[in-house]
Amino acid sequence: MTPRADGVEIARIDLADLTPEPVGYLGRLAYLALVLFENLGRAVAEAPTPAAKSGLGAAAEEMLRIHQGALEELRRAGADPVAAMEPHHDAFDDFQRRTRGEDWPEILVTCYLTTGFLLDFSTALAAGLPAPLGERMQTLLSADRGEAVLVALLREAIDPSPRLASRLAVWGRRLIGDTILVARNALERDGVLPTEERTEPAFAELVAAHTRRMDVLGLTA
Amino acid sequence: MTPRADGVEIARIDLADLTPEPVGYLGRLAYLALVLFENLGRAVAEAPTPAAKSGLGAAAEEMLRIHQGALEELRRAGADPVAAMEPHHDAFDDFQRRTRGEDWPEILVTCYLTTGFLLDFSTALAAGLPAPLGERMQTLLSADRGEAVLVALLREAIDPSPRLASRLAVWGRRLIGDTILVARNALERDGVLPTEERTEPAFAELVAAHTRRMDVLGLTA
Repeated sequence: MTPRADGVEIARIDLADLTPEPVGYLGRLAYLALVLFENLGRAVAEAPTPAAKSGLGAAAEEMLRIHQGALEELRRAGADPVAAMEPHHDAFDDFQRRTRGEDWPEILVTCYLTTGFLLDFSTALAAGLPAPLGERMQTLLSADRGEAVLVALLREAIDPSPRLASRLAVWGRRLIGDTILVARNALERDGVLPTEERTEPAFAELVAAHTRRMDVLGLTA
Repeated sequence: MTPRADGVEIARIDLADLTPEPVGYLGRLAYLALVLFENLGRAVAEAPTPAAKSGLGAAAEEMLRIHQGALEELRRAGADPVAAMEPHHDAFDDFQRRTRGEDWPEILVTCYLTTGFLLDFSTALAAGLPAPLGERMQTLLSADRGEAVLVALLREAIDPSPRLASRLAVWGRRLIGDTILVARNALERDGVLPTEERTEPAFAELVAAHTRRMDVLGLTA
């Protein structure tokens, strides 16, 4: 049995009035899902056993499913999927470089924490999309994020090694800063961010979920 | 319109009496598909544009579909999928290290040529599996290998650069040696390889298909 972080209660993350228009939302999500896929792809490549590769491969596939679901919605909305992803390219590539991780355990922590945070965030924003699209996106985003396999592999590595645990705790704390930043930028409208006051309660919920994910690994957030 | 290498005529590749028993075949294919997936995952990660990432992502997903299809057949046969992959781990990891490629164009060439050769080879062997399984495997292996997107991206890189073309031609010739080797090893039975005489016609067909793939890129095999 693998312990598993409880998801946040998305309903309590009140961001719906800050949701971008659909094409902006979908283009960003499509590119984000590629980035999360690439991270899991690296985790597959570095995995030491066929079993770990296979489990992580299934999680990577879920990210491709989200990517393709977002592209399909863009086409349905009459938008050019590639043009819709383009504006999000640089910011996410920069985020990805900053959060790559140096070795397999760090890559796993990156996958676990950033996928969790950013898909919770994207699900909360989906509540602000026009009616049938919003529900379709919430269904798409209820994908298995591979948390069970990531947690199992990480605990196997961490439990016998307090030294690794302490290094990964530092890594987890560093990741959360970059992750909050890339999420906040998604709320920019006409070059202006909403006030901290407006977004603070939502981010407090997202960070609480991050802390619970760290707890599941036995790491201090 | 993207030019595309014609597949080999699988019926002419006569290897059916050399096909390993089902669990051996499926375990090898399951692990091979992971390796091909990892290579495409690297190609996605190194891709310079969202469009290239997205197209290569779809090809990567097909390799995961083959991997999961093989796992499903292993479970159906009552075998442990992880145990079935285990014996193929070292040889394929070594193959993968030797064929990684140093930069994006080399990675693309690796994906294009090794996926083509090894899936042609696996399809030919599927003809020797017991009846309904063999057909299911041939259907599974008729997956889109991403050749169209790989060829389009490679031609875009090669056409304006004779220097790159000549480097990639050398790379393609080097790959074929390692690829033939890893394929031939799959024919070993009780530590003994079949004679060159027995396998030469089949490998001649597989190499001819390789040469056609190089031709499509304008490279000399």
